[in-house]
Amino acid sequence: MLTRRTVVAAVPAAAAAGSVQAQTPAAPPAAGSAAEQAPGFYRYKVGDIEVTAVNDGFFHRAVEGLVRNAETGDVKKVLQEEFLPETAIQVPFTTLVLRSGGRTVLVDAGNGDSGAPTSGRWMANFRAAGFDPAQVNAVVISHFHGDHINGLRLKSGQAVFPNAEIHVPEPEWAYWTDQAKMAAAPDGLKPNFQNVQRVFGPVAKDVKPYGNGKEVVPGLTSVAAPGHTPGHTAYMLASGTSKLMIMSDTANHPALFVRNPGWAAVFDMDAETARQSRIKLLDMAASERAQVSFYHAPFPATGYIAKEGAGYRFVPVQWTPAV
Amino acid sequence: MLTRRTVVAAVPAAAAAGSVQAQTPAAPPAAGSAAEQAPGFYRYKVGDIEVTAVNDGFFHRAVEGLVRNAETGDVKKVLQEEFLPETAIQVPFTTLVLRSGGRTVLVDAGNGDSGAPTSGRWMANFRAAGFDPAQVNAVVISHFHGDHINGLRLKSGQAVFPNAEIHVPEPEWAYWTDQAKMAAAPDGLKPNFQNVQRVFGPVAKDVKPYGNGKEVVPGLTSVAAPGHTPGHTAYMLASGTSKLMIMSDTANHPALFVRNPGWAAVFDMDAETARQSRIKLLDMAASERAQVSFYHAPFPATGYIAKEGAGYRFVPVQWTPAV
Repeated sequence: MLTRRTVVAAVPAAAAAGSVQAQTPAAPPAAGSAAEQAPGFYRYKVGDIEVTAVNDGFFHRAVEGLVRNAETGDVKKVLQEEFLPETAIQVPFTTLVLRSGGRTVLVDAGNGDSGAPTSGRWMANFRAAGFDPAQVNAVVISHFHGDHINGLRLKSGQAVFPNAEIHVPEPEWAYWTDQAKMAAAPDGLKPNFQNVQRVFGPVAKDVKPYGNGKEVVPGLTSVAAPGHTPGHTAYMLASGTSKLMIMSDTANHPALFVRNPGWAAVFDMDAETARQSRIKLLDMAASERAQVSFYHAPFPATGYIAKEGAGYRFVPVQWTPAV
Repeated sequence: MLTRRTVVAAVPAAAAAGSVQAQTPAAPPAAGSAAEQAPGFYRYKVGDIEVTAVNDGFFHRAVEGLVRNAETGDVKKVLQEEFLPETAIQVPFTTLVLRSGGRTVLVDAGNGDSGAPTSGRWMANFRAAGFDPAQVNAVVISHFHGDHINGLRLKSGQAVFPNAEIHVPEPEWAYWTDQAKMAAAPDGLKPNFQNVQRVFGPVAKDVKPYGNGKEVVPGLTSVAAPGHTPGHTAYMLASGTSKLMIMSDTANHPALFVRNPGWAAVFDMDAETARQSRIKLLDMAASERAQVSFYHAPFPATGYIAKEGAGYRFVPVQWTPAV
């Protein structure tokens, strides 16, 4: 593990190098060199809206203690059936870029430079996809965990998207900016309150809170999905007759939490409310055969939900070069 | 369909542009422009061998008539369950590049400039991965269908890999270069004989036929898998304790032919022999929990085989930026 992490940390610019503009044939990698993965972006259409999934790497999460209400042995059994490692799994991060009507909108912002050494690939992948952070018009945030908001502001304090409006869920804003709640919070939760201050403090007066069922930007409507955090939000993206259910963290890694929607990830603040949100949205997706995306699904993090046994199965889309 | 194909045909250089050498941030795509997909390559390791899956696009295949021994309605039902289109499916092409000991070896060569307009992306993706055709040391061919061999020679007659040894299955060579078999072949099969002459004729004396169970290049051992064609070959790639079963066309699109290994694709020359090869290799992969690759699986075309019901299920690997 350490070796792999070291290698990853040593090539942070790898994906950045995959510019879509370059026309010069590349030299072959030297024998024995650490060759780079393809850039982590994937484009697809939802009606007239061009969606680009942009990967921000992953974090290694120990399986022990990951699921609150299941025996570790049962979790490992599922991982084995899914041909995933049984000791620690890669939990990926994938944000969305929406292009429509000449505007560029992000849904969530990744880890910036504050995440695990195996993350922090977002900007390189975003640029490799041909985008420029100065041209982002809006960022829509699903909830206030660091892996979703830290990409808004570097550790130096620099704002990453200087020209973007920042849209946040109203109940999430109310909770994490409540001084009384921060004072009463257990020690383990206090750093999250402090991080919210760090990220949003300098722009607090300009942040735009949105409610449930609001068309936050054209085509993107908020869907309350509380439990993971108090104001955690999913979305329905719609254009013409096409739609995409953006599930955010309604389920963490689908191999575990789509397959077993009753399982509670340790990241869910209110496990029972999160379970209800998860089952409601998974059931809707399965019934409607809607295309979905998950922030923590294997890249490119989009597919469909099939009802299977007592739970569901995530069926990834087939990769295609035809956008 | 026509619109999508037209768009694809209009941007054949898209993937080529994804050079891994470029360091200049790319300009954002103009509003309304046809944005390009990420380059179609994916790297993974098999022990010390670096494998790069290189996509060559796809062809649209009508579902009607695709499976010899199943009702079209039953085929459509499976496609619906897999959230794939029911009228025509994308059958992708993915070759492998093996890097080991300073040598570059290809397993199959793609369509070159002789395939469907939705194919022909191989060279751009290969270059985007940092490779140069002049530095290919060997090409190992699994069988003599055009989508596997046409990449060796352009329509102009130009050899694409001037410095590469060409390794071919001995029974495949014997069959397709047999003048008596060509004379006796049904009209539908004659173009394949002629294409074999076109591709291999100029280098016939240098082609290196290999038998079953041979280590064709270091780490890559041939495994006879006849039926799809008379000399169709799979491989075991091994390094240290790691291995990859390279299934070639032992099964066409896994959503249909892994799930239902008794189904016969219209491309199989000897359906019963192909079925026996398919079940034998799928059963071995499932029993050993071996990583597999398929030429016609959704990109990046690698995963695992789980026993399920009366057939099997293809479980794709989880994409990772960590090679």
